[in-house]
Amino acid sequence: MNKQQLKLLGQQLLGGQLSLDAFARQLSQPQSAVLGEVTLDLDRARRCGFPEVVYGEGKSVETLIKIFQSLIDEDCNVLATRISAEKAAELSTTLPQATYNKLARTIRIRVNDDQHTADFGRVAIITAGTSDLPVAEEARETVDWMGVQVSVIHDVGVAGPHRLPARLSELEGADAIVVVAGMEGALPSVVGGYVDCPVIAVPTSVGYGANFGGIAALLGMLNSCASNVAVVNIDAGFKGGYVAGMIAKGKRVDS
Amino acid sequence: MNKQQLKLLGQQLLGGQLSLDAFARQLSQPQSAVLGEVTLDLDRARRCGFPEVVYGEGKSVETLIKIFQSLIDEDCNVLATRISAEKAAELSTTLPQATYNKLARTIRIRVNDDQHTADFGRVAIITAGTSDLPVAEEARETVDWMGVQVSVIHDVGVAGPHRLPARLSELEGADAIVVVAGMEGALPSVVGGYVDCPVIAVPTSVGYGANFGGIAALLGMLNSCASNVAVVNIDAGFKGGYVAGMIAKGKRVDS
Amino acid sequence: MNKQQLKLLGQQLLGGQLSLDAFARQLSQPQSAVLGEVTLDLDRARRCGFPEVVYGEGKSVETLIKIFQSLIDEDCNVLATRISAEKAAELSTTLPQATYNKLARTIRIRVNDDQHTADFGRVAIITAGTSDLPVAEEARETVDWMGVQVSVIHDVGVAGPHRLPARLSELEGADAIVVVAGMEGALPSVVGGYVDCPVIAVPTSVGYGANFGGIAALLGMLNSCASNVAVVNIDAGFKGGYVAGMIAKGKRVDS
Amino acid sequence: MNKQQLKLLGQQLLGGQLSLDAFARQLSQPQSAVLGEVTLDLDRARRCGFPEVVYGEGKSVETLIKIFQSLIDEDCNVLATRISAEKAAELSTTLPQATYNKLARTIRIRVNDDQHTADFGRVAIITAGTSDLPVAEEARETVDWMGVQVSVIHDVGVAGPHRLPARLSELEGADAIVVVAGMEGALPSVVGGYVDCPVIAVPTSVGYGANFGGIAALLGMLNSCASNVAVVNIDAGFKGGYVAGMIAKGKRVDS
Amino acid sequence: MNKQQLKLLGQQLLGGQLSLDAFARQLSQPQSAVLGEVTLDLDRARRCGFPEVVYGEGKSVETLIKIFQSLIDEDCNVLATRISAEKAAELSTTLPQATYNKLARTIRIRVNDDQHTADFGRVAIITAGTSDLPVAEEARETVDWMGVQVSVIHDVGVAGPHRLPARLSELEGADAIVVVAGMEGALPSVVGGYVDCPVIAVPTSVGYGANFGGIAALLGMLNSCASNVAVVNIDAGFKGGYVAGMIAKGKRVDS
Amino acid sequence: MNKQQLKLLGQQLLGGQLSLDAFARQLSQPQSAVLGEVTLDLDRARRCGFPEVVYGEGKSVETLIKIFQSLIDEDCNVLATRISAEKAAELSTTLPQATYNKLARTIRIRVNDDQHTADFGRVAIITAGTSDLPVAEEARETVDWMGVQVSVIHDVGVAGPHRLPARLSELEGADAIVVVAGMEGALPSVVGGYVDCPVIAVPTSVGYGANFGGIAALLGMLNSCASNVAVVNIDAGFKGGYVAGMIAKGKRVDS
Amino acid sequence: MNKQQLKLLGQQLLGGQLSLDAFARQLSQPQSAVLGEVTLDLDRARRCGFPEVVYGEGKSVETLIKIFQSLIDEDCNVLATRISAEKAAELSTTLPQATYNKLARTIRIRVNDDQHTADFGRVAIITAGTSDLPVAEEARETVDWMGVQVSVIHDVGVAGPHRLPARLSELEGADAIVVVAGMEGALPSVVGGYVDCPVIAVPTSVGYGANFGGIAALLGMLNSCASNVAVVNIDAGFKGGYVAGMIAKGKRVDS
Amino acid sequence: MNKQQLKLLGQQLLGGQLSLDAFARQLSQPQSAVLGEVTLDLDRARRCGFPEVVYGEGKSVETLIKIFQSLIDEDCNVLATRISAEKAAELSTTLPQATYNKLARTIRIRVNDDQHTADFGRVAIITAGTSDLPVAEEARETVDWMGVQVSVIHDVGVAGPHRLPARLSELEGADAIVVVAGMEGALPSVVGGYVDCPVIAVPTSVGYGANFGGIAALLGMLNSCASNVAVVNIDAGFKGGYVAGMIAKGKRVDS
Repeated sequence: MNKQQLKLLGQQLLGGQLSLDAFARQLSQPQSAVLGEVTLDLDRARRCGFPEVVYGEGKSVETLIKIFQSLIDEDCNVLATRISAEKAAELSTTLPQATYNKLARTIRIRVNDDQHTADFGRVAIITAGTSDLPVAEEARETVDWMGVQVSVIHDVGVAGPHRLPARLSELEGADAIVVVAGMEGALPSVVGGYVDCPVIAVPTSVGYGANFGGIAALLGMLNSCASNVAVVNIDAGFKGGYVAGMIAKGKRVDS
Repeated sequence: MNKQQLKLLGQQLLGGQLSLDAFARQLSQPQSAVLGEVTLDLDRARRCGFPEVVYGEGKSVETLIKIFQSLIDEDCNVLATRISAEKAAELSTTLPQATYNKLARTIRIRVNDDQHTADFGRVAIITAGTSDLPVAEEARETVDWMGVQVSVIHDVGVAGPHRLPARLSELEGADAIVVVAGMEGALPSVVGGYVDCPVIAVPTSVGYGANFGGIAALLGMLNSCASNVAVVNIDAGFKGGYVAGMIAKGKRVDS
Repeated sequence: MNKQQLKLLGQQLLGGQLSLDAFARQLSQPQSAVLGEVTLDLDRARRCGFPEVVYGEGKSVETLIKIFQSLIDEDCNVLATRISAEKAAELSTTLPQATYNKLARTIRIRVNDDQHTADFGRVAIITAGTSDLPVAEEARETVDWMGVQVSVIHDVGVAGPHRLPARLSELEGADAIVVVAGMEGALPSVVGGYVDCPVIAVPTSVGYGANFGGIAALLGMLNSCASNVAVVNIDAGFKGGYVAGMIAKGKRVDS
Repeated sequence: MNKQQLKLLGQQLLGGQLSLDAFARQLSQPQSAVLGEVTLDLDRARRCGFPEVVYGEGKSVETLIKIFQSLIDEDCNVLATRISAEKAAELSTTLPQATYNKLARTIRIRVNDDQHTADFGRVAIITAGTSDLPVAEEARETVDWMGVQVSVIHDVGVAGPHRLPARLSELEGADAIVVVAGMEGALPSVVGGYVDCPVIAVPTSVGYGANFGGIAALLGMLNSCASNVAVVNIDAGFKGGYVAGMIAKGKRVDS
Repeated sequence: MNKQQLKLLGQQLLGGQLSLDAFARQLSQPQSAVLGEVTLDLDRARRCGFPEVVYGEGKSVETLIKIFQSLIDEDCNVLATRISAEKAAELSTTLPQATYNKLARTIRIRVNDDQHTADFGRVAIITAGTSDLPVAEEARETVDWMGVQVSVIHDVGVAGPHRLPARLSELEGADAIVVVAGMEGALPSVVGGYVDCPVIAVPTSVGYGANFGGIAALLGMLNSCASNVAVVNIDAGFKGGYVAGMIAKGKRVDS
Repeated sequence: MNKQQLKLLGQQLLGGQLSLDAFARQLSQPQSAVLGEVTLDLDRARRCGFPEVVYGEGKSVETLIKIFQSLIDEDCNVLATRISAEKAAELSTTLPQATYNKLARTIRIRVNDDQHTADFGRVAIITAGTSDLPVAEEARETVDWMGVQVSVIHDVGVAGPHRLPARLSELEGADAIVVVAGMEGALPSVVGGYVDCPVIAVPTSVGYGANFGGIAALLGMLNSCASNVAVVNIDAGFKGGYVAGMIAKGKRVDS
Repeated sequence: MNKQQLKLLGQQLLGGQLSLDAFARQLSQPQSAVLGEVTLDLDRARRCGFPEVVYGEGKSVETLIKIFQSLIDEDCNVLATRISAEKAAELSTTLPQATYNKLARTIRIRVNDDQHTADFGRVAIITAGTSDLPVAEEARETVDWMGVQVSVIHDVGVAGPHRLPARLSELEGADAIVVVAGMEGALPSVVGGYVDCPVIAVPTSVGYGANFGGIAALLGMLNSCASNVAVVNIDAGFKGGYVAGMIAKGKRVDS
Repeated sequence: MNKQQLKLLGQQLLGGQLSLDAFARQLSQPQSAVLGEVTLDLDRARRCGFPEVVYGEGKSVETLIKIFQSLIDEDCNVLATRISAEKAAELSTTLPQATYNKLARTIRIRVNDDQHTADFGRVAIITAGTSDLPVAEEARETVDWMGVQVSVIHDVGVAGPHRLPARLSELEGADAIVVVAGMEGALPSVVGGYVDCPVIAVPTSVGYGANFGGIAALLGMLNSCASNVAVVNIDAGFKGGYVAGMIAKGKRVDS
């Protein structure tokens, strides 16, 4: 139950549309659902603004269905990450309404109809190279699921240094920028030097040899000489998108 | 020259208080100052919203004075980090108006009078333990220098798990939260689970042995199971404060 | 031959049920069995309280059968870990009495009938997330094989911080708690802050990127600010269960 | 307030020695003391069995005195670790009753008179080499502070393999064994192979070159082929002693 | 051409069985054979006592045949390591006289008839666990190829500490001992403490989690507190055997 | 458009073969081509002397074709690296003129006819062992694509120390030397000690165990005691060849 | 004896200014000087183009004087690196002609009068920040000692991205560029994207926390997406300058 | 008591020079001396051929004197390593007969008069550079203490590749060679390629930056392509000397 829903209940109580009994019954719903090996956090949206996002790795299809169904019952729009194509295929027989993004490896199930609105801010996503695409897609799906506007600029890494300045105008008015880069991970520093909003840097495992599966990019970003750069885990498109979306949404949600 | 100043100039031009010549002269000032071994970025405030912050480590007192004087000439409030007590003492003879924070190891020189206003949002800083204090102080000085309101909660690490919930009300309305923690760095995850704004996690080198100078805390924070946690460098109080301040300030600055 | 059996032999000797010759012959059995590439430790139960547990990785099915048979001949309940499903299937044709736990990847063969009794204490196992299940299952099988009572609480990681306090009552009276967690491995610290018994922390390789196959969780647990947390190897469900079981069993075994 | 004290209060209430008002007042004392940069956990003893132990590194003498005084007011025996000789000297002028162990770098202040009793079990501490002495001393002070009996065996590392077997009889009846070793850290495995109680392994930074400040010993212990070995942080004499003391004390405290 | 062969030529020249011309022709043979992507070192036996051993990884079957044929032409007994079963099968069609050891993954081709003799010393190989078998086999094949006597003791790791002392007599008279161990790699230290000859320690990748593919064992061995332990690469059965064989052979070869 | 082409255009303009309009149209071509997930750098040859080389890993066949076609349209000779055999087969149906080097895993498409000339200098490539061949081939293809002469010396690593001196004459007149080596990566230091031109060291992942996928060779090369050794990434045959080719070409291109 | 000198001798022989005897005597000088703990390489200039540069770390003042004197006797211009101020002061009493650069920590002694000439090419050195100055100075001294022209651009790191393009004209005609950068080490990639000559990247230890003493910058540079970037050791100003100088000098020396 | 002494006792018993009682008394001496924090291994010489060598780091002067005195009482020649100059000065007042080697940081006390004899073999020590001298000295002192002949060749690292071949004749007849090298640690591989005896490689921490305190040299040596190279810890001059001495002594001691 999120704040919006809590406010609605309060208004209904005050307006007489809801009896005190019904009001209490609705609020006294359990905060978590114990489903065998899963303890689903049903209170997440109220505390943190968004319902639990499902991390798909290492969960069986049975477990996933159990979680998805529980979220649907709570009227939450579902987002699950790290879902292999095989699991997605299996899931689609039980939950045909689920949408699978093969590149991003995400599943989404739309339950309610919250619209994107300009009031929820805007996020820009930038990739250094074409091989960073899957991570950027995970970020894009996440921001979109949060109801925040999102645009993408691809393949403007530092080796072709004229490519980014040519598109700076597309960054105007962004509330947060997600920069996805592998190899030396230099792009967030350069972007950070051009803009006046936070840059969320997502290192990717793109590269070989001494990239050490993304460590090179991660360290580069952590040591960025640009002051406005914060970092998330290697290949963590979801988290990069989530933090950026929260900044963007936070920006105007209370105004 | 920041956006505010640029707008002002534009208005003065339009309003006739400024001739076209004077307008052009002011705008055609060089974007950087080449001062021997230093190339000062005089355009930073316009591009990024705040002037350059000076990283004091490895710079001589002579170099620092040269930079400070240049910033003062540009009418910028000065913030310098990683200044040893010895350098601070030397600097104070030339620049007596400089304020030194011994714990934070920062120097500030106030040139213009920008006030803190509620319009610039609010940042909360939380430490896991008392030994994290110096890093938290660097963050606090930074947020304050940005004109953003800032409050601090100390020593509420996870080993005493009742201490944080007792003070959650102090986090209400914060636009971003900086969590400073060493050892296992678990506190940002717990804070992240309670709030609906971004958490900027600052790992510290507090601890010993397998903390590896802060790597344990850094990795813990990068792998946080809370979705709203982004991370900066080990002991990077400045950067943690800066990103949080930018989120907070960004929140309402355009509204 | 464990202490129990040694006491029994002594009593039989004193009671005249056993001749001195027979007594000597039984005690003079070799302490290890040299079986080609295996030197089985037949004295383990006497020294350490429990017979040797078989580490299955890198052993052929032939070798495993040789070891299992030898343990059965010594009247030991068999526990083997890290057995792949393929090997388990092969083994079942020779040893149909073996029980395979697919999640835990353990094999057990019950030879004698030691009962669980309240006298042997109680262990609680907690997982941070659903993906930690296989490691927790290995721990659970181990504790159960030791004759110690065991209960499990699943999926109460720190991102949903209300889930653990809701179930603290289930930890009452536990002699040791095994906490299984991946990603940032923060849960043992939080559990440690709530209880007055030892916490054995088992880091798992669950996560991605900068979790570095479990290093992040391992370091987090080693640097725990809770004083009652000791750590075992990454994904070492067996060892976590074993140490906890030994604490629990030790608790009352001599009383 | 620990369980013992809570029981006493309950008995006094039931026995009429305490009015309901007085009972409530005593229980309603705040659970933590907010002392500026410190939030002292006054509830630790009730939850975890022992009051908070003070980590001295990075805390000023002023802060330490504030904490010590607060603990004394709560009638807690004080234990503080990682106190330099300089700080200890300064502290002794304000708190002359404090005892400083120069090798262990611990401070203790005895407030109440809990006696060691056989009921609280027994811990044995073993060192691999003479250079491991300071870490062993920290462990010994900790176990002693917990009211648990403790004995020490020094310098029986594996290069002189006859030294340990010669003293196995001293380990008889120990409830837990702390093994302190640097370099390759092999001793816990060997001890583990001889005993039927948990071994808490404490890696030390003793050695040079590829010991990497204790990493070699830490990894050796984490990978111990002995099943009964759990590990704590490098040079963590305190934590090794604490976990062992808790096992020993737990053993009989409820019987 | 090895020293033995050089001496023989010299004797034949002195004894008149060889003309000066023939002598010169034989000695003026090229020191290396340039075979496309291979530059075979034909002078190795003269300089180092043994011909080049072939490292099979990353070489095609065509390349291997080219090398083997060249060695055979030089009258060298062939030893090749790291040969997969697939390559071995392919090779056997061209070189049916090659012997493949499936566990050790070595190929040998016997060309001349050097006998093992007691004059060439003796090497003992010890494994800590059954899973170390393949590495020990590679070592055994190597020592045997060098014409040095070799015996093996299996599965006497430190968790069963009575197993090694029971077999110390088998080590009597060994000129060098190869100890093969994974996990914590403690066995070489213990062996080193019992014997008066060099111990060549071979760490293996046996284990999981924080064994980091053999790093734990490697570091343990490098930091051995036993003075007579030298170390080779992880899983380097060949090199462990080679160095030990060279010590043993060197022992008496000049006497 | 490279310098050569720019000069040509200038001459044509001056010579009247080109109208000012046509001249402007040709120069005003966009500097990058935005092709969906790709932003191709069409200005690379002008700035850096050579067109963009395509990094094939993680790019789909569709994306590769799009890029290749774009480069062909710009009249650039195509070089793509890290192309798997499967992708190469697919590509060949659309682009039959593409040449695939299976060992090097490179694709080349020749569009214009730039000849190798002695004016463009000469590069020598040296491998330490036969298993380094694929990386050396990637380097050789790259140097050849740049129009620079290239020769290769194989398998002259330090264990056969007479092999390199025997071939020093082949290095005479080289403008740069690429040394490709795995394992301990010692060869560049030795080569560096013999020559008076830069040595570009390419560490390979050849080896096992503590080579850590090429880290051993990389560190060895970075710490080379020879002053003329610079290093590129592990297995980076392309980059090693590119830098060497640029040195060689640069040598005489302006003379 | 360098090539120049060898040619001169040859000419003198051919021209009759030198008898065959004198010619032979001069050429038969020993190639190294064994000076106790030093074996000075007197043949370095002939083989590698420049005499041995002295690495000062860990050498006593006595040893240094012995080496310097030997080089002076051979008519070599001396360059020594990593000389502390204390050693320099001591040395100056014996060798007053030595010049010490306090920032670079280098000593030079000019013996012969080779002039800088345009024929020897030109190197540009660029620093990312002011704190990189000492490393850049070491590079500058080295290039200058080689007789190659050198210019420096300071403090144009990526956080102020307009600073570098403003000075690109200063890079025109450089034969090689040394880029010195700490923190994330992004500058070489950006420079590499603008120029058509080799970039020698020198990572520095400037920064803190997760810069890990320069590892972050090192990895960033090794993984540079710019093709023309090769790397030397952390803080290796000398080697960066040497390789660049060799490229520049090589460029025209034979023409 | 070493083998020699045991044989002597046996002969004296058989020859009647020793009564059975005296014989038993002498053999029944305790195998270790428990001296407070020290358990001295008095049986080491019998088991391992040489008495215990004292590791001085982290031991107080009092402890050292206690150990030295005990060894002297046992008629053992004392060798202690890692003794600082300060400790050595203090020790010399109590034990004036002790000899301190300032470079090697060793102390030796000669008690009995074992002579060096050719029968005990010969060890050669080689350094790559002058800065490796202290480690080489520790090795030399150790070999000398063992009664084995030892010679040293200094500063013949690979950057001057002609220096080693010039001195190969000095290696003739060596039973083992210790090669001491820092930076890239390439020298053992080159030496290994020239000789037919074992090479014990000692990596040193000489170098800077990415030498990582000796890791680069250590990894280089572990991955040596020469088959006869075994490795000891970083800066472990003692152990390098000890293993080599044992090979040399072993060579002829039984003949």
